[in-house]
Amino acid sequence: MNKRVIAFQGEPGAYSELAAFEHFGSEISTLPCESFEAAFGAIEQGDCTHVLLPFENSLAGSIHRNYDLIVRHEVHIVGEHHLRVSHCLLGVPETDLDALVEVHSHPQALAQCEHSLTRMGVQRVAEADTAGSARLVLEWNDPKIAAIASKRAADVYGLQILAQNLEDNPHNYTRFLALTTRPADVANFEDGDCKTSVVFSLKNQPGALFKALSVFALRDIDLTKIESRPIPGKPWEYMFYIDFAGHSEAANCARALDHLGEMATFLRVLGSYPRHRVT
Amino acid sequence: MNKRVIAFQGEPGAYSELAAFEHFGSEISTLPCESFEAAFGAIEQGDCTHVLLPFENSLAGSIHRNYDLIVRHEVHIVGEHHLRVSHCLLGVPETDLDALVEVHSHPQALAQCEHSLTRMGVQRVAEADTAGSARLVLEWNDPKIAAIASKRAADVYGLQILAQNLEDNPHNYTRFLALTTRPADVANFEDGDCKTSVVFSLKNQPGALFKALSVFALRDIDLTKIESRPIPGKPWEYMFYIDFAGHSEAANCARALDHLGEMATFLRVLGSYPRHRVT
Repeated sequence: MNKRVIAFQGEPGAYSELAAFEHFGSEISTLPCESFEAAFGAIEQGDCTHVLLPFENSLAGSIHRNYDLIVRHEVHIVGEHHLRVSHCLLGVPETDLDALVEVHSHPQALAQCEHSLTRMGVQRVAEADTAGSARLVLEWNDPKIAAIASKRAADVYGLQILAQNLEDNPHNYTRFLALTTRPADVANFEDGDCKTSVVFSLKNQPGALFKALSVFALRDIDLTKIESRPIPGKPWEYMFYIDFAGHSEAANCARALDHLGEMATFLRVLGSYPRHRVT
Repeated sequence: MNKRVIAFQGEPGAYSELAAFEHFGSEISTLPCESFEAAFGAIEQGDCTHVLLPFENSLAGSIHRNYDLIVRHEVHIVGEHHLRVSHCLLGVPETDLDALVEVHSHPQALAQCEHSLTRMGVQRVAEADTAGSARLVLEWNDPKIAAIASKRAADVYGLQILAQNLEDNPHNYTRFLALTTRPADVANFEDGDCKTSVVFSLKNQPGALFKALSVFALRDIDLTKIESRPIPGKPWEYMFYIDFAGHSEAANCARALDHLGEMATFLRVLGSYPRHRVT
């Protein structure tokens, strides 16, 4: 495949598709998938070159389903992208903001725009997703009904952007990870500017997590994230997911991972990739 | 109030109500609440003596909403309860298992009984909750329709238990925490047999979490759980929730918490309470 094809979860115009264009540039084609599972399937079956999936939102927290799925699939993280979630109000061209009656969107998007919608005095209607709401608004072609969705959805469905930045909290970011079947090429980035993600499990004994974190702390390696997920069949035992600054093949990181391997009952490096800095 | 009144989230017959009777004994009355928020409201308004809420399931993971809510309310953890989630098939008395056509329940309960339901060759129908499905089965009074719910729901709605332990994975436990407006009475339990839950935030700097965990590790205090949740308005900064073995007023734990307080930007002891051991 010459052209990059990026699978994402959702309908055309979803925030995930917007993130794909922001991350990979405009010269890609995108592949909408019904579920996270289907997106993992698409990369394994060779239907796409990459998959871009959300792993965390700065307000709602981690998207645990994707943490659970990544460890069951033979994929490598090759990039991260922080999307600023900016909600737009979309309507058919003749819509008058003052005459608006109903706003449709995903419940989480409606909740994130609570103050704006109350000020506008409109009725909220929950739909399955944001881009799907935009599609419905186009189909209904009724100037009294609008959708909350991404600016990308306006392009996809030919709708007008009636208002932007409707979200009450501007610190609303979603972190996406780009996955593919081969590790990222080290030559493409400097060590100081990258991150590594690993997943491991430990013997259930006092001080186990402290000792595991010591392999990073004793080498001044900065952790940026820790997440724990239950191990099915072993109540109250956990898989730990850690992101740290540095490349897994850099000398100090490689030694830290060796050291972690000595004490872990399971360890997998999910990938090293360039750190995304929001400008 | 002489009699203990326990608020829970869900309808009468919910797993949470079953946990309340298992934990507090049969001499209580229960108060069903529509949402987790309403249950926190009930304890603050004095409508109940305790609230019992789920915080973690051994298969699905933490119930993050309750981690976020507990830190916003003036409540103390005074107990924990591990409920073995055992799904029952409930029908009206004349139901014949071989003639069953439809099974209604919460989507997660249906998913957890996937193999059993496939073997039975019945149609699955998703409902808002397990106890509500039992109520509907009673209302419909149709021997071709059954519900998956708790054994408590059979008592509440006068239904017959057609089958028990329908869940595919027997390691299915939900951990509940009992909350009230005053800390637990220390005199009621031995230090060696209890747990303490704390929540804290740290300066965002290398080694911060390692140093925080050191206050426990250096004193051989065993951590049983760590959970991180985003801090709204501070993207990629976290609140850490930790459970450890011991009472917050025992000398070594009190010193560990003093030490943690020196480095934390925020620290709150959520409670010390008797550890629940499943027999």
